[in-house]
Amino acid sequence: MKNKIPPASVERLPLYLSCLGDLSAEKSRVSSEKLSSLAKVNSAQVRRDLSYLGTLGTRGVGYEITTLKNRLEIELGLVKGWNTIIVGVGNLGSALAQYDGFREKGFGVVGLYDVDPKKISSQVAGLVIKSTEEIEEDCKKYKVAIGIIATPAEFAQETANSLIACGIQSILNFAPFRLQNIGNVNIRNVDLSQELQVLSYYLDSPPV
Amino acid sequence: MKNKIPPASVERLPLYLSCLGDLSAEKSRVSSEKLSSLAKVNSAQVRRDLSYLGTLGTRGVGYEITTLKNRLEIELGLVKGWNTIIVGVGNLGSALAQYDGFREKGFGVVGLYDVDPKKISSQVAGLVIKSTEEIEEDCKKYKVAIGIIATPAEFAQETANSLIACGIQSILNFAPFRLQNIGNVNIRNVDLSQELQVLSYYLDSPPV
Repeated sequence: MKNKIPPASVERLPLYLSCLGDLSAEKSRVSSEKLSSLAKVNSAQVRRDLSYLGTLGTRGVGYEITTLKNRLEIELGLVKGWNTIIVGVGNLGSALAQYDGFREKGFGVVGLYDVDPKKISSQVAGLVIKSTEEIEEDCKKYKVAIGIIATPAEFAQETANSLIACGIQSILNFAPFRLQNIGNVNIRNVDLSQELQVLSYYLDSPPV
Repeated sequence: MKNKIPPASVERLPLYLSCLGDLSAEKSRVSSEKLSSLAKVNSAQVRRDLSYLGTLGTRGVGYEITTLKNRLEIELGLVKGWNTIIVGVGNLGSALAQYDGFREKGFGVVGLYDVDPKKISSQVAGLVIKSTEEIEEDCKKYKVAIGIIATPAEFAQETANSLIACGIQSILNFAPFRLQNIGNVNIRNVDLSQELQVLSYYLDSPPV
């Protein structure tokens, strides 16, 4: 594990990268103030976060967009390209398998797994759905870096346990159940309702 | 719009609420340090964020969990219950329609809309998929607070525009295309690859 950049700053780097994507066609430089307003992070924090990547910004001139994008992609390890697998191929798993945003950022889905015999052997996003029993062998064969969980909530923990037993060190969990970190494994829980809750805060009046 | 709590703090409130959900069965109080370690936010920041809700913590004793949960739910407006609609009923839209995490947090999906004649009139999650032409009337009838976009990227902007034209003031966009904020409308973009990028940072070596 790297410890160079504080975890809270690491979590904002993908956001800056995404904001830069909105700009690149228009201009070659961006100020920390512009990035601050796009990312909704205060500009002192933007400058501090980006300072961990080296001295890239020039006072009064800003950041060179292409350089900053490349630096963010390198720091986040996106240029390496990571193999991922998805366990649980319901609607959410199928949607994730087809999600363009993964490929764009260098994440390839190399396997889909389910326990439902009716799903096994059918195809989604050009991949044949396999039994979860094949995960261990495939993880070795394809050097899988990240396991993505899209099972129902009640199977999320056991799925995580079996991915860890297969040697997976990083897990992204989309099931609506917060997995706990275990040992050296890096687990991130995605709560799809989180942004809805933020919107809710800004809604003034309830529906009558 | 409320301006009482800084936006960055608002964004962390759903996370604290989610972390409290992990605890409630075990104990009645939680320290800011424990909450800090669960949420991965430094404890001074946790105390500052929660201070905006009023003085709920006691030095050396911590926060009463049930009180803090209730306070967070009230502050986020979750207790009011909001009606939402989903536009784009592919795999992602279907997954969102069935996602338990929305209902649990007080968000009800009252309408599903698509442009594909093959999908219109079929059912997902107990709802009949309707033509997007019916959005405007339904928004009035059901007092829809939040529009959720799950269309392909290339239709996200026009979908947002038409939701705004229908009077929707809050939009949650799951399409892999960053919508820009327009006027007084509150738009949040969800990038499903963001957490994968954070995991990527902590992966040490590329697949060979």
